[in-house]
Amino acid sequence: MYYVGIDVGGTGLKAGVVDEQGKILSKVTCPTLVERGAEPVVNDMAHLALKAIEEAGLQVSDIKAVGVGIPGIEDPRTGRVPFCTNLHWHDVPLTEWMQRVIDKPIFIGNDATVAGLAESVSGVSAGVANSVFVTLGTGVGGGVVLGGKVYSGSNGVGSEIGHMLVVAGGELCTCGNRGCWERYASATALIRWGTESAKEHPEGALAQAVKGDVSKITAKDVIDLAKAGDPDCAAIFDKYIYYLCAGLVSIINLYDPEVIVLGGGVSAAGDFLLNAVRKKLPEMVFYKTMPYARIELATLGNDAGIIGAAMLGK
Amino acid sequence: MYYVGIDVGGTGLKAGVVDEQGKILSKVTCPTLVERGAEPVVNDMAHLALKAIEEAGLQVSDIKAVGVGIPGIEDPRTGRVPFCTNLHWHDVPLTEWMQRVIDKPIFIGNDATVAGLAESVSGVSAGVANSVFVTLGTGVGGGVVLGGKVYSGSNGVGSEIGHMLVVAGGELCTCGNRGCWERYASATALIRWGTESAKEHPEGALAQAVKGDVSKITAKDVIDLAKAGDPDCAAIFDKYIYYLCAGLVSIINLYDPEVIVLGGGVSAAGDFLLNAVRKKLPEMVFYKTMPYARIELATLGNDAGIIGAAMLGK
Repeated sequence: MYYVGIDVGGTGLKAGVVDEQGKILSKVTCPTLVERGAEPVVNDMAHLALKAIEEAGLQVSDIKAVGVGIPGIEDPRTGRVPFCTNLHWHDVPLTEWMQRVIDKPIFIGNDATVAGLAESVSGVSAGVANSVFVTLGTGVGGGVVLGGKVYSGSNGVGSEIGHMLVVAGGELCTCGNRGCWERYASATALIRWGTESAKEHPEGALAQAVKGDVSKITAKDVIDLAKAGDPDCAAIFDKYIYYLCAGLVSIINLYDPEVIVLGGGVSAAGDFLLNAVRKKLPEMVFYKTMPYARIELATLGNDAGIIGAAMLGK
Repeated sequence: MYYVGIDVGGTGLKAGVVDEQGKILSKVTCPTLVERGAEPVVNDMAHLALKAIEEAGLQVSDIKAVGVGIPGIEDPRTGRVPFCTNLHWHDVPLTEWMQRVIDKPIFIGNDATVAGLAESVSGVSAGVANSVFVTLGTGVGGGVVLGGKVYSGSNGVGSEIGHMLVVAGGELCTCGNRGCWERYASATALIRWGTESAKEHPEGALAQAVKGDVSKITAKDVIDLAKAGDPDCAAIFDKYIYYLCAGLVSIINLYDPEVIVLGGGVSAAGDFLLNAVRKKLPEMVFYKTMPYARIELATLGNDAGIIGAAMLGK
């Protein structure tokens, strides 16, 4: 049997047919056009699924299930989407609307969750029973696979690892709490610290790199300069690695996975990030002499969304 | 079939026979005498198991398995105990030594883990698939039950919830990190803050309660005075509830259990603790309008160790 995976983004929709091994057989896309509201978007998702099936040279009857990865949360009991903030969706009956067009079982998952599932099926954590995928992007998201299955808890609100309180009382988060991990381990944290540093040191390499326009500072600027040996950016990067590891320690202490996979924009720093984490983490884990999770970089890139969504139905 | 549960404490060993429903049929005890070293203690544990079987009017052949709850960690792959700090055990072949005397499958679990399992079999979280048990004692321990089974991770180092970093860079912990949850949510935290406060306010109610000897302050003193309306102790208790909830939020964000059970010494504060947590937590959870874990007090008390250890073999 085959599976359809749909990756719902703020700007584009992607759908693809995926086989049992997590291999993509076809891939089609269209713009999301969020401003239309939820119903036409979901309708387009369903038709995109049909197009992907056709492109793969298959029939709808060859498809076992359709999986959808969303930048929000699902209610596993109702098949509805209570929240999808970036898309301005609220309590959307996604399953019902999809099945009007394509009458298959529909599975819904958070986008970080499906990316983690994809890596555990055909990526860097393939074959591993327990793994945690961490997306280091604008925020910090998580995908938890336990016993080879997505774990999203009893109420569908689990694996929100970006909102662990790592510095209780610290930086104000968009969620209203102070000190969530994503305030310290996201690309946004690197930009914030970089901006502060560039304002303090207008003669420094970071301020120069953006020609004095600190609003243009990216996480990549900070990382590239840290790599090149700029002391201000190196200090920011060290701080970032400390807080990243602080959250990873909590993930190890709670989930104790075999593998933690780092994905998202910051993970584009590659070995520079990976080596820094692998060096710092052993100083911070609780059981210094016991084995603990391997830290790896995500390998599937943009295809993870389609593959993981498809594998929700497996 | 029946199960034997052994509760290994620093001062006493307890063994009991437990039925399928988690009901204790017999209970026997003896002193631990830690200073003898591990082998005679394990030998006594095995003989105590035989005595518990006899007291229950059963034969060894009626017993399916023997479970052992230890204040340390087990290596599920080898049946050995790598660490049991309070007992000064290091890499103890517990399974092998036990089976010399009683040739049954041996299961080993952390004491907080088995207490959580006990509550999920015949206590306050009975019948619940996903629950987290939190012991608020000298430290903070955790017992995680997912899908009705103990979850201790891939390397046996999971569910160490007391060493989540909740205030990264904060109070120095015995583990070497700064800011572990147990520095802020244990009885020890209440004592530390109480002592600081009593030193600052020698005329205050807390200093008076211990007749000026601040080394005598207990967590119960602080809680009792908070309950009685003493403003200093009420402020300490509020701070305690904030940090307790900070960690509970992370537990909810990661495990999303149906129930979180509060046990250990601090939980003796009963409804005063429970009501404060239930009032504060809703302000701090990530998804304000989604259902999340019920917070409950442990109900099995001292029997949880025997029941939970026994249920490891079920």
